[in-house]
Amino acid sequence: MSFAIFLPPQVANQKVPSLYWLSGLTCTAENFTIKAEAQRYAAEHGLMLVAPDTSPRGAGIAGEDESFNLGTGAGFYVNATTPKWSAHYRMYDYVTQELPELIKSQFPVQADGEAIFGHSMGGHGALICALKNPGRYRSVSAFAPICAPSVSGLGKKAFHECLGDGPAAWARYDTHQLLPGASERLPLLADQGDHDEFLSELMPDKLSEVCAESHHPLTLRMQAGYDHSYYFVASFVKDHIEHHAVALLA
Amino acid sequence: MSFAIFLPPQVANQKVPSLYWLSGLTCTAENFTIKAEAQRYAAEHGLMLVAPDTSPRGAGIAGEDESFNLGTGAGFYVNATTPKWSAHYRMYDYVTQELPELIKSQFPVQADGEAIFGHSMGGHGALICALKNPGRYRSVSAFAPICAPSVSGLGKKAFHECLGDGPAAWARYDTHQLLPGASERLPLLADQGDHDEFLSELMPDKLSEVCAESHHPLTLRMQAGYDHSYYFVASFVKDHIEHHAVALLA
Repeated sequence: MSFAIFLPPQVANQKVPSLYWLSGLTCTAENFTIKAEAQRYAAEHGLMLVAPDTSPRGAGIAGEDESFNLGTGAGFYVNATTPKWSAHYRMYDYVTQELPELIKSQFPVQADGEAIFGHSMGGHGALICALKNPGRYRSVSAFAPICAPSVSGLGKKAFHECLGDGPAAWARYDTHQLLPGASERLPLLADQGDHDEFLSELMPDKLSEVCAESHHPLTLRMQAGYDHSYYFVASFVKDHIEHHAVALLA
Repeated sequence: MSFAIFLPPQVANQKVPSLYWLSGLTCTAENFTIKAEAQRYAAEHGLMLVAPDTSPRGAGIAGEDESFNLGTGAGFYVNATTPKWSAHYRMYDYVTQELPELIKSQFPVQADGEAIFGHSMGGHGALICALKNPGRYRSVSAFAPICAPSVSGLGKKAFHECLGDGPAAWARYDTHQLLPGASERLPLLADQGDHDEFLSELMPDKLSEVCAESHHPLTLRMQAGYDHSYYFVASFVKDHIEHHAVALLA
């Protein structure tokens, strides 16, 4: 597995908190690194950035390279349970356990200072990682997250293939279904462009509804004129880094 | 010809100055747009950014796609004079005349407020455009410019192919040879990484020497640890935009 890491200059003198970025469909560990413009702000605040890949690569599973929303580049941050995918596609364990353990063993990182954010499929990933691990992350945020992958055209194919067909299995990795049971009121920050070409499949309205019903703190900012691209991410990444810095440096 | 343009929000109310970016070998109009992180600062200062491509594409000239430093992606911002290249490869005219005229006819740009900068081959391009057109540009700067293309392994192949073999023809497009005859003392700003993998072919020492001999104002910043990549550009683009904003908004 490849990942990208940015070490801020503060590591010369101290351990620093880590902020994980989960990327969207079709991305590698490079998209965030090249396009998001986050390093400058991470350097200012003294945050380590860690950006994993979005799936295993070259696993040799039939059909893994045929769809943009299944297999390579589309791990959806779940642990697959079907025989076809379960040997390799365990991205949930990878981003919440295996990779953080590797980072802690190799880099000067604060053991108890982690936060997570992401874009699109990675926004979904960031939200479920936070919701499923109360107390683990100091903060969470998302750009254009897939808020309800079990009912979205973006998510259903991978959920069906990787998790089988039980609704309960899908619900364990779906923000809008996890949220009512959340035992921690970690505030959610999400930005969403209103010209996003995937808006109808991202379903921010479901996030708003479930947060309102559950009295879960949510700041959902609908950004006028913005699309789904990394230009959108770059335009607001400063705000997100500051959101995480406040929590991580408190 | 493709080009990229960024319009700052100030165009809603006024004409704005334009800052041209010339890219390096192998680049298209997209590298700067995606990787340089310049838009944020251009927006703050109210500058239009214009990034042309680095050569014609698909001209159909034998060998145009065979070398990274000749033909496609390697126009070197010269007007070719050899029969093989001269019909299409006229990038000097394109970036100093044809494209600015198009921009002025289509976008709300100040007619007399132009500046220019670039990277590597594009740093060379920015410097020669400024040196060859006294009074035309308000300011100029460069990242890791090819300072002496007529004696550099990066430039000699294209100069030979496109300009023939006369030393005088090469000198007309070579910063270190143009500079002693410069009729305008436009201050030069250049950043250069000291871990740049092309350092020996970029020859910033020749730029230093000729500026010292000619009493030409030069700020050459050797940046410790930086390579030739757009991460280097992104790390210092804020300073360059401010350099140009001071001149363009005076």
